[in-house]
Amino acid sequence: MVKLSAIKRIENDAHKIGGVVSLAQGIPSIGSHEIIRDEVIKAIKKGDVDHYSLSAGVPELKELIVKRYNLDLASSEVIVTAGAIEALSAISLTLFHSGDEIIIFSPYYVAYAKVLGISGAKLIPEPLSEENNWRPNIKSLRNKITEKTKAILLCSPNNPTGTVFTKEELEEIGAIALEKNLLIVCDDVYKEFYYTPEKPYFIHDNPLFRKNLINIISFSKNFSLSGWRIGFLMGPPELVEQIFSIHDTLVNCAPVVSQYAAIAALKFEERILPEVMAYYAEHRKLMGEYLESLAEYVDFVWPDGSYYFFPKIKNLKDSEKFCFDMLRDAKIAAVHGSAFGEGGEGHIRLCFGRSKEDITEGMTRFKNYLTKWSPSV
Amino acid sequence: MVKLSAIKRIENDAHKIGGVVSLAQGIPSIGSHEIIRDEVIKAIKKGDVDHYSLSAGVPELKELIVKRYNLDLASSEVIVTAGAIEALSAISLTLFHSGDEIIIFSPYYVAYAKVLGISGAKLIPEPLSEENNWRPNIKSLRNKITEKTKAILLCSPNNPTGTVFTKEELEEIGAIALEKNLLIVCDDVYKEFYYTPEKPYFIHDNPLFRKNLINIISFSKNFSLSGWRIGFLMGPPELVEQIFSIHDTLVNCAPVVSQYAAIAALKFEERILPEVMAYYAEHRKLMGEYLESLAEYVDFVWPDGSYYFFPKIKNLKDSEKFCFDMLRDAKIAAVHGSAFGEGGEGHIRLCFGRSKEDITEGMTRFKNYLTKWSPSV
Repeated sequence: MVKLSAIKRIENDAHKIGGVVSLAQGIPSIGSHEIIRDEVIKAIKKGDVDHYSLSAGVPELKELIVKRYNLDLASSEVIVTAGAIEALSAISLTLFHSGDEIIIFSPYYVAYAKVLGISGAKLIPEPLSEENNWRPNIKSLRNKITEKTKAILLCSPNNPTGTVFTKEELEEIGAIALEKNLLIVCDDVYKEFYYTPEKPYFIHDNPLFRKNLINIISFSKNFSLSGWRIGFLMGPPELVEQIFSIHDTLVNCAPVVSQYAAIAALKFEERILPEVMAYYAEHRKLMGEYLESLAEYVDFVWPDGSYYFFPKIKNLKDSEKFCFDMLRDAKIAAVHGSAFGEGGEGHIRLCFGRSKEDITEGMTRFKNYLTKWSPSV
Repeated sequence: MVKLSAIKRIENDAHKIGGVVSLAQGIPSIGSHEIIRDEVIKAIKKGDVDHYSLSAGVPELKELIVKRYNLDLASSEVIVTAGAIEALSAISLTLFHSGDEIIIFSPYYVAYAKVLGISGAKLIPEPLSEENNWRPNIKSLRNKITEKTKAILLCSPNNPTGTVFTKEELEEIGAIALEKNLLIVCDDVYKEFYYTPEKPYFIHDNPLFRKNLINIISFSKNFSLSGWRIGFLMGPPELVEQIFSIHDTLVNCAPVVSQYAAIAALKFEERILPEVMAYYAEHRKLMGEYLESLAEYVDFVWPDGSYYFFPKIKNLKDSEKFCFDMLRDAKIAAVHGSAFGEGGEGHIRLCFGRSKEDITEGMTRFKNYLTKWSPSV
């Protein structure tokens, strides 16, 4: 098949080569929690998952979401979707049109360009400042806004940089959105993945910003349910009702069996998540220590969130060539920074969501490769 | 939520009223087979369903499909999708554009208009001849073709008329497609639902037509897996590769847990389907006999396929008003014929996929209602 994203192309090549350790695609190395499996199996046996649900989702799941996020059950603020990507596709097809400009902090997750592209909208990258630990520059953001600007797309904790936007930054962005009547679309897929003492500020919690805000929540990474294709979006009813029609058209409803997985996830969240997040914090430490031992070859910041390092390889000009050479010669898969758009070149992305064994073996291979690698080759 | 299809609006209203017997939405009244459930539960316990699959599908499922439909495993002829509707959305967004004309035999399944509408393409209805038991008129079809015609959308066995297109009709349509270089998109969701001694001709089996042919296969109705959102499309590699990119963008991959349900369905097809189809044949007989007892009020043909009757109510002018009045006054839900576009007015659609109890109670209420109903009211 053609036209795969850079990440999938690398994973496909890795699969073909064989014996590769992959730190490329952001797949959680752990499986779904036993409680979730048990609850889903019960629902299957009861025959609860065979028929279409309402397009917006199984009522029990919607009620849990409404309670969890302080929403109003009576109004249409939630649509359960076939993963975050279907949510973003439905948003894109409904609210964006050819000629619209969507500002995105760059480097950014590669799939956004494709998803926003189906509407004909144009991505306008706003660089995160590498010199300043990948923080946003709000003044520069403001200068990017034109009459065509329709929305700002946020991903915090960020993929690939690991940036967690601060309360101040988010409130400034929220204020700009209100002032300029722009939509803020938040991809909150890494919401629980933070390594700071304080829980990150969640802009949705401030009702002031909700009228221009759509949040996309996924169960893929936090609950290790990527294969189940389950997530949801929440936003102001007048927008959600419009998106609903396209969601209904695209998939009819989210897979019901997966909606039951999500019900279990939300019910047992407090039991499942701390364990998962402790696991990723350990992995971050493990990979970060390897990178520190490579200070001669790489510059990097410890990510405050998500599950990626995004080191800069000193003197690297062509990250794509570097990654495919390394894949072939050292059998380690990483994603070239140039795949993440402006500001990504010179870097590679390494996922520490993978298993300890993969991180240990992968980083050992990476170290060996780097010590022999010469930028002129 | 707004902007629901007619069918969903009726089901929603029915839900609100309470105590309604629904013969409206085409939901199978039986649940998934125990073998499928067992196989899925095994896969869940093994941890096989937690991670993304390849975008085109789990290799084992693709292999089963390739074998079942005589495809070439080496080339890209199959994409596993999140149900038939995602397949059609991906086809529509990839291959159709604003201004394109898509010919569809009318009356037709209401969701098609929405799904094709997201591409900006226009549906051109080609009436099935009611006088002639809802058969297509190939000469008239030919006259509908213009320079803008891009495709012919076929649904055989047909929803809502029950028409099963004959070998001759399908080959004539296939020849026109080849001659005019049009695409044929077949929604084969009712493929196994036929009540004729002979198995219907499946145009895909004739390699002559494959280069212009895309088939959409669903597991929703035949295997009672509508909630699982699982199906696939197959077509010529050069088209499938294009569609693949949009499929990847819309949902990343079909839900993996549901792909395992599809694997079990295909593996145990011969054990599951005869039982299911015998069940629907009985239901058809049951509903048809009720309709025969109503000859004073209705004209109808016994459907050769699918699981709907589409009777004409004598002297009925406004089927929408009729159905909503009947829902309110007699607590029976049926779909108004006008919801199926040109040629549907004056009819109602009754689904015999529902349970025996629902058919018996629903048809009794329908009979009582009809005997009191007067077209002038």
